Amino acid sequence: MSLLVTGSIGIDSIETPHGCAEGVLGGSSVYFSLSASLFTEVRLVGVVGDDFDLSMLGPLEEKRIDTRGVEVRAGSKTFRWQGKYTGAMNEAETLDVQLNVLAERGPEIPPEFGDTDYIFLANTHPALQRGFARQFPNAKLIVADTMDIWINTEPDELRRLLSAVQGLVLNDAEARLLTGQGNLVTAGLEILKMGPRFAIIKKGEHGSLLVAHDDLCLLPAYPTLKTIDPTGCGDTFAGAMMGYLATQDRHDPDTLRSAMARGSIVASFVIESFSVEALAAVTTEDIERRLERLQAIARFE
Amino acid sequence: MSLLVTGSIGIDSIETPHGCAEGVLGGSSVYFSLSASLFTEVRLVGVVGDDFDLSMLGPLEEKRIDTRGVEVRAGSKTFRWQGKYTGAMNEAETLDVQLNVLAERGPEIPPEFGDTDYIFLANTHPALQRGFARQFPNAKLIVADTMDIWINTEPDELRRLLSAVQGLVLNDAEARLLTGQGNLVTAGLEILKMGPRFAIIKKGEHGSLLVAHDDLCLLPAYPTLKTIDPTGCGDTFAGAMMGYLATQDRHDPDTLRSAMARGSIVASFVIESFSVEALAAVTTEDIERRLERLQAIARFE
Repeated sequence: MSLLVTGSIGIDSIETPHGCAEGVLGGSSVYFSLSASLFTEVRLVGVVGDDFDLSMLGPLEEKRIDTRGVEVRAGSKTFRWQGKYTGAMNEAETLDVQLNVLAERGPEIPPEFGDTDYIFLANTHPALQRGFARQFPNAKLIVADTMDIWINTEPDELRRLLSAVQGLVLNDAEARLLTGQGNLVTAGLEILKMGPRFAIIKKGEHGSLLVAHDDLCLLPAYPTLKTIDPTGCGDTFAGAMMGYLATQDRHDPDTLRSAMARGSIVASFVIESFSVEALAAVTTEDIERRLERLQAIARFE
Repeated sequence: MSLLVTGSIGIDSIETPHGCAEGVLGGSSVYFSLSASLFTEVRLVGVVGDDFDLSMLGPLEEKRIDTRGVEVRAGSKTFRWQGKYTGAMNEAETLDVQLNVLAERGPEIPPEFGDTDYIFLANTHPALQRGFARQFPNAKLIVADTMDIWINTEPDELRRLLSAVQGLVLNDAEARLLTGQGNLVTAGLEILKMGPRFAIIKKGEHGSLLVAHDDLCLLPAYPTLKTIDPTGCGDTFAGAMMGYLATQDRHDPDTLRSAMARGSIVASFVIESFSVEALAAVTTEDIERRLERLQAIARFE
């Protein structure tokens, strides 16, 4: 089934205890697309400014990623983010953010993408996400991401978005902030009351949690020893998850669990390099190998 | 196989967002014994002062717990701890601690306990733990717990202890403090270099991690919705784990995994009440039911 992502394309500058990367490719839809393309074709919708060097999208062009939805907007500048990770690298400290073109109107969905079945709305203003969702009245599954800024500043718009999507992916701190619940299972159940049929709560190194009306699942993160740069980890998780769901054309509980496991595995690769370097090099065999290992690690009688 | 625990017996006063409990039974060896007794007989070694009301041990007397190793020391006072949990209740704030008899010499191991096969050294001064360990030269398995205070103040004594035990159980913050490693798998591997054949790292609501020379396992915590009082959770985990190992008389990787799962399950009950109330009421059927549920929750293809 066809899969589409709307989200940011950006230029990142990242500092971690392992080094720095200046002016590298980033953005939610970039990580998502590269990850999802390991499973299926991906339609990418995003916007950059005319300062953007399109050759930076080289790693995407080599994959099953349709970039006809990437708009280069004349007179605008590309989104830029500068961040720093310290200590256990669980959270980035944003040193500088220039929304630039992301603060303007959203990109157009190309007409030839209108028939897409599986849609992922990466994090942006919830009104914009809802505007995208409306353009896919016949989609089989629409899943959104969100973040603390929208939970805090646009609660009403976010509620409207949540009543228009079937799935929500967010991290543990965001789930607690959105629902006011400390217990993550309770938080997940509260999210279901807001509209989605399932909530997937990402817990970083501690794995992920699926809460659905008829299911509850706890998955470990793949325990990699090599954390170089966690940027894009969440979008990579979502990409592999949605890519797998699109290939299966199902999102029943068991398929969601398998999809989350693929998300966890591909995310374990992305953190092993700066930017998309390691992610772009992942193979199907790499995924299978780590999946078998994760299953062995999580097994108990 | 026979199982023995050395640890504290105390009187706790606890405050949580759900209420207060004043002057209730507590202490590591109490939680451990009650938990382990769900699987096998337990020999309890600890010391209280002559201010201790022995009828408080009523819940233990009803179980398979041999309390002949409980010394009532004339002229001494019982260990008392006052703590408070707030927010997500992940960590207790100690409001007051009176070591009293725990600051004196350790309790005697009764001669009839000298043949014990499985030994758990609950948290105390590592020199005292090593002194206990020495009294069981023929034990099949000796496992210790420790905490931040000993890692910080008695690193040399702790190293000596670690070279004398086969297993170490500690929480994630302690594992990081002990090894200087942020990655918990790396921390576990560092602990193996210090002597133990396996390290079990408890991550609270995020489950537990087993690191052994020939195994790595990540288990979720049982996702209970009802957290009333987390006191004793770690000792309860250790009790069920050691109780299960003693019944199996093995500690190979698969048996350790099963033992950890039992630890996770029994710990999920203890947090559902103040003090040992819920723990004392757990049945074998309760454990089986949650174990099946945990296996279903952790399953993925």
